[in-house]
Amino acid sequence: MSELGVNVLEPLAVVTRRQGLQPMAARLDALREWLARDLVDLEADLAGVNGQDDLAGRAAAWLLERPGKRVRPLCVLLAARLGPKPAPTARDLAVACELAHAATLLHDDVIDQGEERRGAPTARIVYGNSASVLAGDHLLVLALRRVEQAGQPALLASLLAVIGEMVAGEALQLERRGRFEPDPAAYDRIVASKTASLFAWAMRAGTTASGCTVPEVAAGVRFGLALGQAFQLTDDALDLAGDPARTGKDSLLDVREGKLTWPLLVACQRAPELLGRLQAVALDPDGEDRTDLRRCLLATGCVDETLARARSAATAANAALAGFAGSPARSALSAVVQAVVQREA
Amino acid sequence: MSELGVNVLEPLAVVTRRQGLQPMAARLDALREWLARDLVDLEADLAGVNGQDDLAGRAAAWLLERPGKRVRPLCVLLAARLGPKPAPTARDLAVACELAHAATLLHDDVIDQGEERRGAPTARIVYGNSASVLAGDHLLVLALRRVEQAGQPALLASLLAVIGEMVAGEALQLERRGRFEPDPAAYDRIVASKTASLFAWAMRAGTTASGCTVPEVAAGVRFGLALGQAFQLTDDALDLAGDPARTGKDSLLDVREGKLTWPLLVACQRAPELLGRLQAVALDPDGEDRTDLRRCLLATGCVDETLARARSAATAANAALAGFAGSPARSALSAVVQAVVQREA
Repeated sequence: MSELGVNVLEPLAVVTRRQGLQPMAARLDALREWLARDLVDLEADLAGVNGQDDLAGRAAAWLLERPGKRVRPLCVLLAARLGPKPAPTARDLAVACELAHAATLLHDDVIDQGEERRGAPTARIVYGNSASVLAGDHLLVLALRRVEQAGQPALLASLLAVIGEMVAGEALQLERRGRFEPDPAAYDRIVASKTASLFAWAMRAGTTASGCTVPEVAAGVRFGLALGQAFQLTDDALDLAGDPARTGKDSLLDVREGKLTWPLLVACQRAPELLGRLQAVALDPDGEDRTDLRRCLLATGCVDETLARARSAATAANAALAGFAGSPARSALSAVVQAVVQREA
Repeated sequence: MSELGVNVLEPLAVVTRRQGLQPMAARLDALREWLARDLVDLEADLAGVNGQDDLAGRAAAWLLERPGKRVRPLCVLLAARLGPKPAPTARDLAVACELAHAATLLHDDVIDQGEERRGAPTARIVYGNSASVLAGDHLLVLALRRVEQAGQPALLASLLAVIGEMVAGEALQLERRGRFEPDPAAYDRIVASKTASLFAWAMRAGTTASGCTVPEVAAGVRFGLALGQAFQLTDDALDLAGDPARTGKDSLLDVREGKLTWPLLVACQRAPELLGRLQAVALDPDGEDRTDLRRCLLATGCVDETLARARSAATAANAALAGFAGSPARSALSAVVQAVVQREA
């Protein structure tokens, strides 16, 4: 079974069984069966993508070989089953989407001085910042070439626009690093451009490739934007409340990297005295009692508030699915929404 | 007059007058007149390209506002006059070519820890490495979007392939940094992929846009590859023999950045004891008497050898021009070749 199955579908199946949702669990098993070939092909493709045996290639492989959740390519593959016609380019588009994501991670880790990802040191720690910059460039080019070769010029144009948005979002986040002012509009702008835009492209790619109508593509894009928001809010909550052994990263990593997340924003609104302590940790990660800080943050109820907001984004994502006729792919996308907000890693 | 006129055509006019080549000087003046509108539009376009008022945008503007020689876009514009039909997309392709070049400079300066460029501190010194990485991403996306909007999908595909080559070339250079082994094959591979490939694309873009035949496009590509090699060899020579006040960078910068250039390669072949001294400077720029090192390098005759190799690449470039019927654009490209190898900055 591919890692994607392990990472997204398996935990969801466990959750649904635990909650007594047997039909849902059965549906997920069926979904895994149904997608098995696509998922195996996807992993094989990602493993073989990197023909380059140089520093850039090795740094890229370091990240790609540590499988993430693969939610974005899963969205491409499922969206590619929403339309009336077969989508022979679906796998290429799914691979491209994951490569574009990996490219931005390699650059973001340099920019944010990230030290851990997917339970391991980041590529920049292992191979150096220079190799990580080049590895990001390498994967970005591979992603764009893959879409170009799929022969749907409009999708290449929209992916370029999305990558432009992601860069602008990262720039905005960089400018605000370590400040933690509780500015909800800035937070929403960063999430929309850095995270949700690529989920939206995943849905645009899959629906377009399978011949969906214009309103259906638009519904897919709305779904992707809402799912991306739900995904990021859940990520934000896990940074504070997650189990580091499961998430693969230390807790309060976002604080140390100076990132304003939704729970930190809520905590600073509810207990303004925390702002100075957050800024102090961003300046000097060892200068604060982080266990106590975490306790004080959690005491504001900010995680519950964040998970509630994630659920409301999930509801919006499911509402967007009403734009499609009932189908196994539509049910599967709804299962992905649930997996995204209920995940523990 | 645009900076391009100042930077490429003006020095060439001076050189040719000095050498008593009055007809050539007159031809260059005519060329400047002929291209004036295109050149002004190009600069205006590059100045306005950067709508983004964030760290990435400002770091990008820092580089773009310090005009380089603009040789690549000049090649696009001239090649766009080689073919039988008007090329309304020529300026977009020229802008894209310069933006792609600038994008790689912003990343290369982070990777090579470059401190000076175009007579000023690099963007990464002024705005930081993170901003410089993002600025490169930003300009790369702008370049690709510009080509995409020009509506010639094959040119977008070839630009993506070229950027992939440039990344591989930079990776190879990074792996060999500071070692200075005199490996001519590795040197040629780095120059072909890092420098010549984009010159070749410039010619491909212009010839394709103006409706040249397939053999003409191929001749244009050969011209670009040879011109790129001549350009890099001249650059290499200037690092050792140029006047820092004119080149805008300290001499021996390539040594300090650990780059194997052609004159260093020749010097190490002729005087193997220099290898250790070069490696020492790359490790500790202040640990060696650089004035003496420079004298010893020059004493090997490596600069003359490099300039001779540049002239032979220039001859190959001119030979490739035989693939086109006589025209003012063909003469102008021949003048560009001469400017590239005779420049002092």
